[in-house]
Amino acid sequence: MSDERIWTAAVLVIGDEILSGRTQDKNVAQIATWLDVQGIRLREVRIVPDVEQEIVDALNAIRARYDYVFTTGGIGPTHDDITVDAVAKALGVGVIIHPAARAILERYYSARGAELTEARLRMARVPDGAELIPNRMSGAPGIRIGNLFVMAGVPHITAGMLDALTGQLEGGAPLVAHTIGAWAPESEIADLLRLGEKEHPGVAIGSYPFFREGRTGANFVVRSTDGAAVGACVTMLTAGLEALGYAVTDGGI
Amino acid sequence: MSDERIWTAAVLVIGDEILSGRTQDKNVAQIATWLDVQGIRLREVRIVPDVEQEIVDALNAIRARYDYVFTTGGIGPTHDDITVDAVAKALGVGVIIHPAARAILERYYSARGAELTEARLRMARVPDGAELIPNRMSGAPGIRIGNLFVMAGVPHITAGMLDALTGQLEGGAPLVAHTIGAWAPESEIADLLRLGEKEHPGVAIGSYPFFREGRTGANFVVRSTDGAAVGACVTMLTAGLEALGYAVTDGGI
Repeated sequence: MSDERIWTAAVLVIGDEILSGRTQDKNVAQIATWLDVQGIRLREVRIVPDVEQEIVDALNAIRARYDYVFTTGGIGPTHDDITVDAVAKALGVGVIIHPAARAILERYYSARGAELTEARLRMARVPDGAELIPNRMSGAPGIRIGNLFVMAGVPHITAGMLDALTGQLEGGAPLVAHTIGAWAPESEIADLLRLGEKEHPGVAIGSYPFFREGRTGANFVVRSTDGAAVGACVTMLTAGLEALGYAVTDGGI
Repeated sequence: MSDERIWTAAVLVIGDEILSGRTQDKNVAQIATWLDVQGIRLREVRIVPDVEQEIVDALNAIRARYDYVFTTGGIGPTHDDITVDAVAKALGVGVIIHPAARAILERYYSARGAELTEARLRMARVPDGAELIPNRMSGAPGIRIGNLFVMAGVPHITAGMLDALTGQLEGGAPLVAHTIGAWAPESEIADLLRLGEKEHPGVAIGSYPFFREGRTGANFVVRSTDGAAVGACVTMLTAGLEALGYAVTDGGI
């Protein structure tokens, strides 16, 4: 077990299009996976509509509570892109045109024979005091201010911004996770799982049932910052499942 | 425009597996789509870990704020299934074995030549005062208490529970939505969209850019409870896009 400081994060998804069910969010999963590699735990996600006060309230509720907060969505050039204003309001700062962001957009549009219109210049607006997060995909940069990271809504643009942030954020020991699976109803395994957690302090076991091809199965994810404890717990669960007559698939089914 | 009462909902996803990035949530999109048909607006989503106090705090923050609250996840037979206890704690009631839930589980397992073990009986535990939401898929019912609806984590089981709830919840006028798309950078269209909202009160226009096949495009979703206003706004946007030289795809690209 580790006594290291645990670094935490939250994600705030700004998006009427997610709340309407029209678009399936992809950013939570990709940010979660990326955070895991940085040794940072995603502890909470909120999805709120494109309404300034809702964004401000959510930001203020979570930014004091977690080490890092990521927002996605609402940083484009159109009237429904209000994230920058909401972040500035939450932080009590003004909004400025960032000179480097303006220069990036000027180069980007000039290279494409296009003009930096007033709408496009909106993408250079940042809360006063912010730094830029490079975005090789579309010119418009992400924004970093304090512990807030303002990312795009379009998943592959956010992917590029995460790439630019890789290794930049202080984190702790990454969680070690090991998954095993069995074609067993989880209700048959409940006692074994409970015992597994009890006998391996610091280890958390997640049980994820599924139904496929008309059969019942479950994957069990064993997690800890202590790799040896994960290994010992997996060994115990595997032996226990086999003793109950279930074949175990390492890596999950 | 309609002066009707607007019915609102929030979803609370209980799931370490979503926060770890291991599992892509599917329930938010399916509940959002279902709510839309019931004339209920999804206004907020929170995703919290499998930690009782986090669930209690989130429930208490949202249950007073929205007409309906749906939880997903954490109602199975294993040690990490703590949703029922958290809901009971949030409401300040005890947990009981629901006689009808017990009978359902007895029939379910007896028909499969299996016993109702202590672990399985956990799935009959409900906050005192709750009603059941039928679940044809796996026996274990969902739970309804006050304005809270406690659903499964496995998406097809939640789908069955939503099916059982269809037409049971009071809602308002459904939003009418009409999508059009164009191979246009949204930054070129920003002024047109702003004007479209200004000239059609009660109409909201969402702008959703994308990059495909090396080209930039966007879909525009026009929403209102007033179908005629949606139609008028779509007509105006279509004319405006065509005047700018962009072909419009009805239904979106």
